[in-house]
Amino acid sequence: MSEAAAAAAPETADHRRDRDTGLDSLAVRYSRVRRTTESLAEPLAVEDYVVQSMPDVSPTKWHLAHVTWFFETFVLTPHRAGYEPVNPAYQYLFNSYYLGAGERHCRDQRGYISRPTVAEVYEYRRHVDREMAALLTEAAQDREEVARVVEIGLHHEQQHQELLLTDIKHVLSVNPLRPAYREDAEKDASGDGAADLRWLSFPEGLVEIGAGGGGFAFDNERPRHRHFVEAFELAHRPVTNGELMAFMADGGYERGELWLSEGWATRQERGWTEPFYWEQKDGEWWTYTLAGAAPVDPHETACHLTYFEADAYARWAGARLPTEQEWEVAAQGRPVEGNLAGRGRFHPEVAGSGPGVQQLFGDVWEWTRSQYSPYPGYQALPGTLGEYNGKFMSNQFVLRGGSCVTPGDHVRSTYRNFFPADAAWQFSGVRLARDPS
Amino acid sequence: MSEAAAAAAPETADHRRDRDTGLDSLAVRYSRVRRTTESLAEPLAVEDYVVQSMPDVSPTKWHLAHVTWFFETFVLTPHRAGYEPVNPAYQYLFNSYYLGAGERHCRDQRGYISRPTVAEVYEYRRHVDREMAALLTEAAQDREEVARVVEIGLHHEQQHQELLLTDIKHVLSVNPLRPAYREDAEKDASGDGAADLRWLSFPEGLVEIGAGGGGFAFDNERPRHRHFVEAFELAHRPVTNGELMAFMADGGYERGELWLSEGWATRQERGWTEPFYWEQKDGEWWTYTLAGAAPVDPHETACHLTYFEADAYARWAGARLPTEQEWEVAAQGRPVEGNLAGRGRFHPEVAGSGPGVQQLFGDVWEWTRSQYSPYPGYQALPGTLGEYNGKFMSNQFVLRGGSCVTPGDHVRSTYRNFFPADAAWQFSGVRLARDPS
Amino acid sequence: MSEAAAAAAPETADHRRDRDTGLDSLAVRYSRVRRTTESLAEPLAVEDYVVQSMPDVSPTKWHLAHVTWFFETFVLTPHRAGYEPVNPAYQYLFNSYYLGAGERHCRDQRGYISRPTVAEVYEYRRHVDREMAALLTEAAQDREEVARVVEIGLHHEQQHQELLLTDIKHVLSVNPLRPAYREDAEKDASGDGAADLRWLSFPEGLVEIGAGGGGFAFDNERPRHRHFVEAFELAHRPVTNGELMAFMADGGYERGELWLSEGWATRQERGWTEPFYWEQKDGEWWTYTLAGAAPVDPHETACHLTYFEADAYARWAGARLPTEQEWEVAAQGRPVEGNLAGRGRFHPEVAGSGPGVQQLFGDVWEWTRSQYSPYPGYQALPGTLGEYNGKFMSNQFVLRGGSCVTPGDHVRSTYRNFFPADAAWQFSGVRLARDPS
Amino acid sequence: MSEAAAAAAPETADHRRDRDTGLDSLAVRYSRVRRTTESLAEPLAVEDYVVQSMPDVSPTKWHLAHVTWFFETFVLTPHRAGYEPVNPAYQYLFNSYYLGAGERHCRDQRGYISRPTVAEVYEYRRHVDREMAALLTEAAQDREEVARVVEIGLHHEQQHQELLLTDIKHVLSVNPLRPAYREDAEKDASGDGAADLRWLSFPEGLVEIGAGGGGFAFDNERPRHRHFVEAFELAHRPVTNGELMAFMADGGYERGELWLSEGWATRQERGWTEPFYWEQKDGEWWTYTLAGAAPVDPHETACHLTYFEADAYARWAGARLPTEQEWEVAAQGRPVEGNLAGRGRFHPEVAGSGPGVQQLFGDVWEWTRSQYSPYPGYQALPGTLGEYNGKFMSNQFVLRGGSCVTPGDHVRSTYRNFFPADAAWQFSGVRLARDPS
Repeated sequence: MSEAAAAAAPETADHRRDRDTGLDSLAVRYSRVRRTTESLAEPLAVEDYVVQSMPDVSPTKWHLAHVTWFFETFVLTPHRAGYEPVNPAYQYLFNSYYLGAGERHCRDQRGYISRPTVAEVYEYRRHVDREMAALLTEAAQDREEVARVVEIGLHHEQQHQELLLTDIKHVLSVNPLRPAYREDAEKDASGDGAADLRWLSFPEGLVEIGAGGGGFAFDNERPRHRHFVEAFELAHRPVTNGELMAFMADGGYERGELWLSEGWATRQERGWTEPFYWEQKDGEWWTYTLAGAAPVDPHETACHLTYFEADAYARWAGARLPTEQEWEVAAQGRPVEGNLAGRGRFHPEVAGSGPGVQQLFGDVWEWTRSQYSPYPGYQALPGTLGEYNGKFMSNQFVLRGGSCVTPGDHVRSTYRNFFPADAAWQFSGVRLARDPS
Repeated sequence: MSEAAAAAAPETADHRRDRDTGLDSLAVRYSRVRRTTESLAEPLAVEDYVVQSMPDVSPTKWHLAHVTWFFETFVLTPHRAGYEPVNPAYQYLFNSYYLGAGERHCRDQRGYISRPTVAEVYEYRRHVDREMAALLTEAAQDREEVARVVEIGLHHEQQHQELLLTDIKHVLSVNPLRPAYREDAEKDASGDGAADLRWLSFPEGLVEIGAGGGGFAFDNERPRHRHFVEAFELAHRPVTNGELMAFMADGGYERGELWLSEGWATRQERGWTEPFYWEQKDGEWWTYTLAGAAPVDPHETACHLTYFEADAYARWAGARLPTEQEWEVAAQGRPVEGNLAGRGRFHPEVAGSGPGVQQLFGDVWEWTRSQYSPYPGYQALPGTLGEYNGKFMSNQFVLRGGSCVTPGDHVRSTYRNFFPADAAWQFSGVRLARDPS
Repeated sequence: MSEAAAAAAPETADHRRDRDTGLDSLAVRYSRVRRTTESLAEPLAVEDYVVQSMPDVSPTKWHLAHVTWFFETFVLTPHRAGYEPVNPAYQYLFNSYYLGAGERHCRDQRGYISRPTVAEVYEYRRHVDREMAALLTEAAQDREEVARVVEIGLHHEQQHQELLLTDIKHVLSVNPLRPAYREDAEKDASGDGAADLRWLSFPEGLVEIGAGGGGFAFDNERPRHRHFVEAFELAHRPVTNGELMAFMADGGYERGELWLSEGWATRQERGWTEPFYWEQKDGEWWTYTLAGAAPVDPHETACHLTYFEADAYARWAGARLPTEQEWEVAAQGRPVEGNLAGRGRFHPEVAGSGPGVQQLFGDVWEWTRSQYSPYPGYQALPGTLGEYNGKFMSNQFVLRGGSCVTPGDHVRSTYRNFFPADAAWQFSGVRLARDPS
Repeated sequence: MSEAAAAAAPETADHRRDRDTGLDSLAVRYSRVRRTTESLAEPLAVEDYVVQSMPDVSPTKWHLAHVTWFFETFVLTPHRAGYEPVNPAYQYLFNSYYLGAGERHCRDQRGYISRPTVAEVYEYRRHVDREMAALLTEAAQDREEVARVVEIGLHHEQQHQELLLTDIKHVLSVNPLRPAYREDAEKDASGDGAADLRWLSFPEGLVEIGAGGGGFAFDNERPRHRHFVEAFELAHRPVTNGELMAFMADGGYERGELWLSEGWATRQERGWTEPFYWEQKDGEWWTYTLAGAAPVDPHETACHLTYFEADAYARWAGARLPTEQEWEVAAQGRPVEGNLAGRGRFHPEVAGSGPGVQQLFGDVWEWTRSQYSPYPGYQALPGTLGEYNGKFMSNQFVLRGGSCVTPGDHVRSTYRNFFPADAAWQFSGVRLARDPS
């Protein structure tokens, strides 16, 4: 559902050069992004590619084919003369939700599809990659349009890199054997404990929010517009597992008055008594990570929380969640640095101990109290790609900042991710805000 | 779920006098509101009081008892010395959702409860009314606190007056006999057709939104705060049945690209092909009204639309829904006048033909594109009454302006009603907005 | 679903005389049965008539109208010249499941129908009764056919007398006030404890099963046919509450190996830990009866058991349930006497202490291990009335003997009642059988 | 659920010799059955082994492991000194429903388990096979008990051979690519049309039913006992696709009066309008077979019918389904020959044209009107293996005769298969019966 959005970080000289020199450098980026996707699937067995462990999850095989279908459908078919789709059935099997691109296979039955095999999907990728390489070398008359759509296609594929990791974590976690995706994931060796929480103050004022002219941004980040922000305070780092345990010890999962009405009903119905992926073994809390099951580290940034839990935690802590505009004010002008996918850890780190605001980017997506709505003056992209963002603007909350599985050149301060309030399988956490006293 | 909120219109001299003279005039208002509630139930047979035709609907009997329970629980028990609740089981049966007030009977099983009988519920009301009359005459030391809670209780009861009509409409509508609530509902005799749609322009600027110091307002309307509004245009009146029919004739219910993703999924799942309460007879559209089944009048204001339909209609019309702030800007300073409950019609009228903006108050609640969120600096009321509004701030959209079943002294320009995007049994409609071209 | 079947006991001289003298005495029986039905509803408040507390239950109002619709549809309309149905909508509202009689209102929405009111339903009864009286006095040419259908209609109404009591018990039981249907229900004053269980032996042999030529019987009891029965032993009385408590104390509800696979899955899914209507108060077991809540009496015959519980209990006790043929062999030739509806107690009595087999008729319907199937040579009645029994011959078990709410002249030794294995709201219990050792 | 049961056909000299010479020849049979299982999986890709396309279906990988777990748990662990289970988690993952053998993984989540991989499952088989070979060569003191359980284990594995084919057919069928299991399945080249239906007469009499002393049989086939059968007539062959099309053309799927009440409700809820696996292409009926999609051949035996369809077809045809005893009377003494799995066709053939009764064995399992119940004197096996059959004796119907995917030495005239009335993915069909006129 949420393939939220992203763009290459426009700040670095390298990336700017890519764009300047046009399609040939786009070919280089295309090749790099595609290789990265496949490298993420490398640790998997063939069997792992097939499974859909819940409706929100897609099989790895599907991710690999779907992003390829995107280039085939939106780039090769309209822009490469004489191109014939590899298999007409793939149009049906690997469309996600684009009504404008025809009928789709039922989302919750993706795990029923054993064919095409994994090898056939890789062959599909090879074929499309060859054709794309040719197109990007040769393209002439509709150069700009091709570049525009390829740019979107690459950001789209980066979103699926994150989803691939997010989904395979779930697939492996439901297996009683609790197999690791990759046993040798690098551990956080800092050895430090989490820093005590500090509050940072921000003044009231009329600010500018959203993406302006230069650089790539999704339509939902535009247009840049004015917004009046009241003075607010923001926590210098996200909430830790240890803080969450204090909430639990204080009956946080049993006290309805701390929860939104819908949150409490959901918690009752599903029997939530601890965060997603947590389980108790011999009286100790363990969690599932991409390196296998591990004891919960109280110093680490808390992860895999629903909006409902984030909101209840904040109320219990005498605080609230920030609005997405407050978050963006704090992040404007800061470099996109942190525990992002490029670090290869794929797990949140010990909560930040440096000066000033910490961990805005990476570690965990941060729930905001802002429901996902169009900005003033919002215009969806024309055509089928206009279905990318705007059609999800109901009953979702905005998350900001990227996580430990987000590609670093895919996120930025204006980037708006969004998920329903009960979603827990994403790498989502909490940063507190409050009104000045 | 949504017992949104309201207060006496503070602008009129009469009402101000009520407040000035304190509890004794509160006693007069108490008596007036309570009598109004009962007069709304007068046309019903005993059997009608019992039925719950879907989980969102409550039986009339339950409404009559629940609002009484509110006074018993929040006024008499804490403030009237020696007061004993009429029946301990009523605490359980007639609590709606106040966790702070103890366990509650399951909401979707209210229609399973044949006892207390209707006569016993009226006796319950009599008893509480006598005690309230005594309290309001005698109260001394905690006068102000009593007045504050009684004020809330009266607004609460007015909300249930609206819900009683809304719910009994549904109860009677599902009966194949299509019985009328009251056959003699006054018809709109204006004879005029609906006015052609005109657009009104509003400038950009930093505006004040929300309720300020004087007069009653619910906590969700506070605090009054600054908000930057871009220039916008607003339709001079809501959408009509005739306009909706044009949408339908153009395939509006069959074209997924016009709908939000969640809206389209809901429409598919439930098989929506026309507005709620509409049905076809001999090739003509009929609708159910509180005066029984009637042909759809194309000039009347369209009603009983979900958010999803409202949003799809707006997209089809090349427009959008207004934000709640845009709506409030247009309504500020205008008198609360229109086809409200006091007019006794209980059905929307022919769409407005006067100059300037029409029908902001009354006829139909107008969906806004604003998801229901706390205002900057929002504080829930302390204690159990703090559960009144804030705990519903997820996955609901704000509606503004009141409808033909809303008591006129219960709504105002800052009033925020809210319902889930798929709710159709409320008297809800659409007013279009758009960005200046 | 199960309106199983029955007929006046053909053994008594009185009843035979009724049939001999034809329609006029049928008029007397018609009048008596109809009056009995209304007398059963007498203790109820108007509100009680309206409620449907679960899909299996029908509102009292519906029962009263449905049995009347039966006479209107199958007797008056075809056989009384010029007869016009009282209200065409009643054909739709009060048809239960007869496909041949047109469309029906959805079974699980009977509790949504407040109109016709109770008074209107009684007026409907009055009207049909007047017309029936006239028909039964005057009928000439199709006398026999009328008599045949009226006979079925009266047995049908007697079934609904039982269902009316069964259903209103459920309706009142779900009310937290636990109101009594009738507080003065006669108590079992015998003062005796339950008799120790004795086993009675029956020899093998080729026996005749089912109803033969004379007397009324439903189609599912016919034809009389040969069946080979192995030697078996039968308990002299049904299982008691005290025996059930021993089962519970021995972990009966927690030991999957005692249950059928489907039974255990159902028990797990619904969380059964005690019999239906039982609840614990201050460490003691209480049950709901038509006289209100009461402590469980260990000497009384156990009631409201599902097939799954009956079967698990039998396995635990080292026994099994009887087949319906075994039961019928034991009952052949015995008078239909016992704690039936005519006794007015409406609750099982202390388990039988007399000599020989006890309580075959009355107290509780006894689950057999026989799934409900057609007898060899079975023929459904022709036409719409053929839907009465045969169409339910899947996934139901046969019960025998009638209960404390079954009219005594409605049951007999060949009578086959049937319900799904998870039904508990019927007055159903267990009698053990076993193979000779 | 239904792993019904079977035994080597005791009629052939070869098999008798196997049993006579004891464990060493059991070792030969063990090896042969195990090899057959693996040969059935040979045409599959690794991805095909993983998928569970509906809750009733198990992944191929699971079948291969589960039957191995059976030998590990019930033979090696108790009978082979020092044997250690390969992986403790396999006890949990590969138990099907044996409560006595510990906790089980949730049946409907078998498709979520990517590990152990297919290669690891084959390694598991290798390991257990080596140990079994050693045991069967060496076993001494508990020889007989070992032989008894191994015998059951082999029949159990043969059941899963059938289920493997049945399930993989469903897995491949839901894939829009409609891949074939094996493209070269042998076609029925007889070229003949289906024979006209003839009726065979059987006299009334007291017959013996069930398995007697010699030869293997499941507990549910025992004991052999007397049963009185009325005279009946039986169709000489099962119903064909062409006959089913006549039923459809006559509105069979639209006429509720032809269906059982529960059948009609199920058909309405699920929207059945044709048999399972049928779909329309360009106005022609196609079906899915293990050799891929193919046009429906009107001469072939109809397959994949539910009990509800079988029953409705029979009613439409003016006939009925046979009881299981009638079927057994007709089959007694006949050789187990026909289109069984050994023929390698895996699809029903053209309906039988020879003299006398045809196709009792093979082609399709034949629904009987007998609900699955214990025979008089039935005793479940002691211990955990007693859960094999008896615990399913509710809400299932008996099928007889084996199908085109049933191993020929696994079925016999007393064999009782059983499935719920709505099951369609089994190779199930209809043979008509009727009462003599």
